[in-house]
Amino acid sequence: MEPAVLQFIELLAVIAAATFGVLLARRKGMDFVGVFSVACMTAFGGGTLRDLFLDRHPLFWIQHEHYPLIVFGLAAVTSLARRIPKLVERALYVPDALGLGLFSVVGTGYALESGTSWFIACLLGTITGTFGGVIGDVVCNEVPSLFRSAPLYATCSFLGCWVYLLLRSVVPQQILAISVGIVLIVLFRLAALYWNIRLPEFSPADVDDRRGP
Amino acid sequence: MEPAVLQFIELLAVIAAATFGVLLARRKGMDFVGVFSVACMTAFGGGTLRDLFLDRHPLFWIQHEHYPLIVFGLAAVTSLARRIPKLVERALYVPDALGLGLFSVVGTGYALESGTSWFIACLLGTITGTFGGVIGDVVCNEVPSLFRSAPLYATCSFLGCWVYLLLRSVVPQQILAISVGIVLIVLFRLAALYWNIRLPEFSPADVDDRRGP
Amino acid sequence: MEPAVLQFIELLAVIAAATFGVLLARRKGMDFVGVFSVACMTAFGGGTLRDLFLDRHPLFWIQHEHYPLIVFGLAAVTSLARRIPKLVERALYVPDALGLGLFSVVGTGYALESGTSWFIACLLGTITGTFGGVIGDVVCNEVPSLFRSAPLYATCSFLGCWVYLLLRSVVPQQILAISVGIVLIVLFRLAALYWNIRLPEFSPADVDDRRGP
Repeated sequence: MEPAVLQFIELLAVIAAATFGVLLARRKGMDFVGVFSVACMTAFGGGTLRDLFLDRHPLFWIQHEHYPLIVFGLAAVTSLARRIPKLVERALYVPDALGLGLFSVVGTGYALESGTSWFIACLLGTITGTFGGVIGDVVCNEVPSLFRSAPLYATCSFLGCWVYLLLRSVVPQQILAISVGIVLIVLFRLAALYWNIRLPEFSPADVDDRRGP
Repeated sequence: MEPAVLQFIELLAVIAAATFGVLLARRKGMDFVGVFSVACMTAFGGGTLRDLFLDRHPLFWIQHEHYPLIVFGLAAVTSLARRIPKLVERALYVPDALGLGLFSVVGTGYALESGTSWFIACLLGTITGTFGGVIGDVVCNEVPSLFRSAPLYATCSFLGCWVYLLLRSVVPQQILAISVGIVLIVLFRLAALYWNIRLPEFSPADVDDRRGP
Repeated sequence: MEPAVLQFIELLAVIAAATFGVLLARRKGMDFVGVFSVACMTAFGGGTLRDLFLDRHPLFWIQHEHYPLIVFGLAAVTSLARRIPKLVERALYVPDALGLGLFSVVGTGYALESGTSWFIACLLGTITGTFGGVIGDVVCNEVPSLFRSAPLYATCSFLGCWVYLLLRSVVPQQILAISVGIVLIVLFRLAALYWNIRLPEFSPADVDDRRGP
């Protein structure tokens, strides 16, 4: 069902996403409980939303029970380090991009199998790939970085999901469509990081500033 | 099942709620990803909570697959505008009140059909009508405006839900109970806006200020 | 199924958790809608996450329909008080610790019955016992106090859940394992409060401070 290479990518991706959570929680001055909790949210948040929205049970981190254990170990090991070098974060960009690709494409596939429309399937794929970070940011009391002008992330996922869906409907080999989708998302994401490609952001000053009547 | 007039109100309400989300996200300086995401949250957040709490699947925005598309189009079109005039927000008060009425009453009905008590049904109706804005505010790192002293909103919904339930149990025509419930909520909300009717708020100074022991 | 003593503890625990929510919402200057909503989140948030994650329906506060009513009454009664003395909060530590014990152990049991691994069961037990406060804090725009260095809370719950699981597998009487688990968590929590036992927190200064590339 799941080739070994995809399982290996998934493992890398969980570790990368969890490590981003560890870094985020440490920046906020949390203790171990916070570090482990935020790491779980960044690693499992997107997939949990997808599973709840599509009514898929057991949730993937309940089924793959070793993932929370791995995140626990990661939080414990990193706790021993007084300082995490900046280099670690940069080294995570590649596994994180792989995870973005894998989770987006797999999430899109799950959604389609549940009978959603193509547009909804791509939305749910993108949510799977990106909303762990949104939940982590919200819980850490920050405006989600996904929603601000930064190198393209959700956009890479969303466009790659469409390519995957188109391929899936024309080529008979599932694994080919999945692979091309993932590779495209990874390349697009790394290109966005390298050339610093961003969407424009709205200037708050351009909006009238009070909500009330 | 759903008369055309209710479908039309629902469409108006989704557009109004999504536009509030667009304005909120722009005030926070987000990019298109943020604007679209927050617009989806304000438009679909309340209904999603209701569906998850009551275990109703597919979620209403997965079933009505054109709604996310409409919100996507709305986010795209408003992105072309450099500035959104204050007038737009004021013009949204009427469709937003209609949406408050419709979603509250319909949510209450769904809850009751799932076998909840009347009180729970009214709570779930109010959540359906109002919690999209709460989720949008939380994700945008603001204390929910629903929870602060502002012209009555949740209160209108909650009281209207009770009237709907009472009517529903005494008059045979469903559509009559629904219509009266919606109209009452709309009138109550518009009156609260016009006369600036608010609940009193608690002064933070009246509370001892630290949680720890 | 549920002996009267456990039901009584549950009632106390809901009241204690809801009162913490009332205090939190008042500190943020909310109105009655906010006070009631936040009280519901702190009282029912953890159990709701557990029920959604394990696909248990109806949710426990929909099934035990008197709990939301009790919280409503509590929010109403406390609204009459202009000022809530600091003493009230201290008096809540014991019922709150009882609730932590009860909800953690019961949540662990539910998870195990759903077929999860022991580690996942303990995680879900801890979430049940502690995440109401996390949700309340997040909605009130604060970094969750559970994740910061404070007298041990989640740690007491997590360790007590393991003891419960171990006992459960060796002693035939369910109620004995449950009771020992609860008592241990309560004693551990009160000891942590009394001797101010905390986990160390990470200093934000030890982390490189920007996330972007």
